[in-house]
This record gives sequence, structure tokens and C-alpha cells, in this order.
Amino acid sequence: MDKFMLAAIEQAQKGAESGGIPIGSVLVKGDEIIGAGHNQRIQQDDPMAHAEIDCLKQAGRVGSYNGMVLYSTLMPCYLCAGAVVQFGIKKVVVGENTTFEGAASFMKEHGVEVINLNNTSCIEMMQDFIENNPDLWNEDIGK
Amino acid sequence: MDKFMLAAIEQAQKGAESGGIPIGSVLVKGDEIIGAGHNQRIQQDDPMAHAEIDCLKQAGRVGSYNGMVLYSTLMPCYLCAGAVVQFGIKKVVVGENTTFEGAASFMKEHGVEVINLNNTSCIEMMQDFIENNPDLWNEDIGK
Repeated sequence: MDKFMLAAIEQAQKGAESGGIPIGSVLVKGDEIIGAGHNQRIQQDDPMAHAEIDCLKQAGRVGSYNGMVLYSTLMPCYLCAGAVVQFGIKKVVVGENTTFEGAASFMKEHGVEVINLNNTSCIEMMQDFIENNPDLWNEDIGK
Repeated sequence: MDKFMLAAIEQAQKGAESGGIPIGSVLVKGDEIIGAGHNQRIQQDDPMAHAEIDCLKQAGRVGSYNGMVLYSTLMPCYLCAGAVVQFGIKKVVVGENTTFEGAASFMKEHGVEVINLNNTSCIEMMQDFIENNPDLWNEDIGK
């Protein structure tokens, strides 16, 4: 499997192990991971702490995001897609969009290349979580 | 002046006093402020800590945002507008959009009512900051 998606999945598992929602993300520059994070909404009691936001926070003030790629185990929602568009991240690789449609069209309209790996591990990880925690999941996406 | 915008301006001033970018935000439910924040990007070394994100973080896990109004001294960028759209905040009141166009159209397309107070204090506050700190400002909006 793509080594960066594997790192994002490891982040998601880390989130699950600490009682959170299993969504992980890494920011890649060249061949290097410069930021990694996972959904921390439950752990930090922070509704803004989605995986991609946590990842971009951990990466810190990188200046320009030119040439960088954001990986996420799940298609970004509007919050995270908004960060992608605002900060000029031009490529996003996602594990899946089967369990959540997300904001792919919005990103594409703004010139972002969105690649969906349609990864079975990512799909099963979210399907299991949503099935066992429907209320937590709906809160996460504002439903 | 609108008391909630006044509270948002006080947040912006608090941000400026702590060495940050003067943008403030409050979340209002009925006649009560249930969250308040300001841009903390410089103070917290966190590129995601825009004023509205900080405000929504401070408000905590409120569950549904139904009926709530988000105030900001400046028109939200795509990151913050993304949060508004994702979490179903249906009304946003901004101090101004003279110094930054922001993502008003995006919010309106998603059914958000956007009211611009075109407030002179808000405009002058940002004009002064941008004039004296063009690099910090450009970094804030990913330019």
C-alpha cells in the first residue's frame, strides 16, 4: 500500500486507541511526512479537531504549501476542504469516500487534484466505527 | 453598535494585545455569547487557529448549531466558511469585507445568510495591521 496512506491509517488507529474517531491524516513534502494528526474531537473536546486540521496544526507554520500533498483516510468535509482550498494545497489523496461523501466537488472546483484510493481497510475502519457509534459520528459531521 | 460585534472587536483587540492578528469572533445562541475567540496563529504557532475556529473551539461540543449566529470582525476565509457550512451555522454577521473578500459567495451558495455591517472600526483595525505586517497577513490567508 501507499506508504503515506499507511501512515495516515496508523494515525487513525492511534486515534481509535485513545477513544476517538478513527480518521488520520499526514502532510507530505517531497518524500517526507512533515505533519501527522488524527481526529481529536472527543479526546480534546474540540469540534474543530478533525484529522486534517490536527495534521496541519502539527505541521506548524510551514509558509507555502506549494507542492505538498495532504493524505487523509477519509474524504475531507467542508471544514477540512476549506483549509485545503484556503492554503493552496493542490493535491489530496484519500483512503475512501464510501462512508462519507465529503467535499470532493468543492475542492475540484477550486483546482485541487483529488485522488481516491478506495482502500478496503479505510472503508471497514469507518464502517465499524459508524455502526457502533452513530451519534458520535453524526456529531462529528454536524448532522 | 451591535453588542455582539462589539464583543468580537474586543476579542480582536485582545488578540492584538497578545501579539496576534486582530480578528475576533463570537458564537451567539439567543441573546447569549456561548463562545468567543480570536486569531491565535502567531501566539499558538498554529496556522489553523483562525478567529472563528478558535471561537468554535472555545464554545466546545455544543451539539446542534441550529439557530446560532457566528459573528466575526472580518469576512471568513474558506477554512472558517467551511466550518460554518459543515456544521450548519445558518447566519454569519461580519464586521467588514473591505480588507479581505473572503468566502461569502461559498457560504451563500450553501444557504447561509451573510450580513456585512461594513464597520469602520473593523476596517481600520485590519488596514492598520495589514499595512504594518503584510507578510504576517499574507501567511494567514495562505498567499
